[in-house]
Amino acid sequence: MKVVSYRPDEQTAWRAGLLLGETVRDIASALPGAPGTMQELLEQWDAWRERLASISESAPASETDVALQGVRLGSPLPRPASFRDFYAFEAHVKTARARRGLEMIPEWYEFPVFYFSNTAAFSGPEASIRRPKTTRWLDYELEVACVIGKAGTDIPVERAHEHIAGYSILNDWSARDIQREEVKVGLGPAKGKDFATSMGPWLVTPDELEAVRVPGEKGDRYDLAMVARVNGVEYSRGNLRDIHYTFAEMIARASQDCMLYPGDVIGSGTVGTGCILELGPEQHGWLAPGDVVELEVERLGVLVNTISE
Amino acid sequence: MKVVSYRPDEQTAWRAGLLLGETVRDIASALPGAPGTMQELLEQWDAWRERLASISESAPASETDVALQGVRLGSPLPRPASFRDFYAFEAHVKTARARRGLEMIPEWYEFPVFYFSNTAAFSGPEASIRRPKTTRWLDYELEVACVIGKAGTDIPVERAHEHIAGYSILNDWSARDIQREEVKVGLGPAKGKDFATSMGPWLVTPDELEAVRVPGEKGDRYDLAMVARVNGVEYSRGNLRDIHYTFAEMIARASQDCMLYPGDVIGSGTVGTGCILELGPEQHGWLAPGDVVELEVERLGVLVNTISE
Repeated sequence: MKVVSYRPDEQTAWRAGLLLGETVRDIASALPGAPGTMQELLEQWDAWRERLASISESAPASETDVALQGVRLGSPLPRPASFRDFYAFEAHVKTARARRGLEMIPEWYEFPVFYFSNTAAFSGPEASIRRPKTTRWLDYELEVACVIGKAGTDIPVERAHEHIAGYSILNDWSARDIQREEVKVGLGPAKGKDFATSMGPWLVTPDELEAVRVPGEKGDRYDLAMVARVNGVEYSRGNLRDIHYTFAEMIARASQDCMLYPGDVIGSGTVGTGCILELGPEQHGWLAPGDVVELEVERLGVLVNTISE
Repeated sequence: MKVVSYRPDEQTAWRAGLLLGETVRDIASALPGAPGTMQELLEQWDAWRERLASISESAPASETDVALQGVRLGSPLPRPASFRDFYAFEAHVKTARARRGLEMIPEWYEFPVFYFSNTAAFSGPEASIRRPKTTRWLDYELEVACVIGKAGTDIPVERAHEHIAGYSILNDWSARDIQREEVKVGLGPAKGKDFATSMGPWLVTPDELEAVRVPGEKGDRYDLAMVARVNGVEYSRGNLRDIHYTFAEMIARASQDCMLYPGDVIGSGTVGTGCILELGPEQHGWLAPGDVVELEVERLGVLVNTISE
């Protein structure tokens, strides 16, 4: 199933909805006692998941149903509990380093690494992304995120799937000029990523990806094409199957001596070719106000954002 | 004034309290309509600050008063809205780099840098800090934090003080062995800091620091001795006055193209000599289960934690 954060009108706060074809059904109205927001729903995920899944597209219409076309969607989690972004695709790390004249780092193969980023700057599909005032090197990053639906610490790789509520497309917007300077000091990236992250259009539960699941000793991969387009022109193309560290390995690493909570977001890092930094800004140019960036991942939808001044 | 998060008993959630001498007064009980938690109080800080300040130590006792000795104190914010930790003391950066055979970084003098860390692993005074299972190089970091009490974006240095609700002692516990490996990959530190941060014992409002305020063109510094002791032996001694970047400069940097919110925590970074990494583990040894670490900052109190297995 696909769950969303939506606003039926501008006055109402973000509510948890279930996508049924082209209709959004309000979850708290459909299931008496169910929570009204996605964060609360994830905190009770095990209690509601099956009852949610029992509402099929053929269910009779409810008076709170609204057409997908008529509502505003937000990030499935308007403000995640935490946001750890990993660096799990080898091609991205290799190419991005090579462009700076650096060799691959041996430690990268030893364990998955991440950095924390800003949970207060999340936005959803169709949102306008403001370019930071001093930035001229604005970039997108084509990623997939998983969202935690069950708390846990020291989660072993083989049980990590029990903690995943679902997957979504993630765009880790990057101010490359700010990032380039700050990382020289040996911290971050932080300010280079602080202004915006977008996620959406919906959270897709793992059962919808069963047909493309590629099991492995260290957890599942998914055979899902990942594409980025800027103003309709294809820039990036990769596949989630090519990820080096699985989400299970990332969850195991993140939860080592540390409690993960429902609503925590874990980003994959950028897929190979999945940003302008890798492709070469001399060829494509950086993003500018007016540009429309579409990230498409099979079965997860399309996440569209427009750059503004 | 000094405000705390406290639990009158183990069954009650953290509540906002005002410290009056050796007594904690429940804020929501003392001021009808006032919020029950520190996070909510900070979200309405401008509305309640003066009324809170009007409750003096000579005020008549209330039936909800409890003796400081009899309550458990938490981090003033049990879970901050965000946690940015800066790197604002020159001596710490220089010494820590020199110990790794590295020279000072010219970019460090150009702008203050930070990294985001885990808001879900905060604990308060007297809390036991569990050493990560694989860590043998456990360290403390002697810092001061400021807490945001008013939202804002693109906050200029000269107005930053309007956004500070108060200051507290902060211990950014560090697993140096994990950190050493992960930073080679060029992200973080993240996992090396993911397990614990402690803050407290209370949040001290700026008026209590007026006598030691050292105004400057780029914001205020404070003449406050900072000391760390391990098992009663003094390890670290510095002064908050020696900070290179003021909190005003850090707030200006953090809020550039980015909204800061009430409950956001901004750490100073480690004062010079303020951790074992700088002092030399060969001389002091790393922290081990049973060790008692006391961080003392004039006018801000003493933050005591014990290491556990």
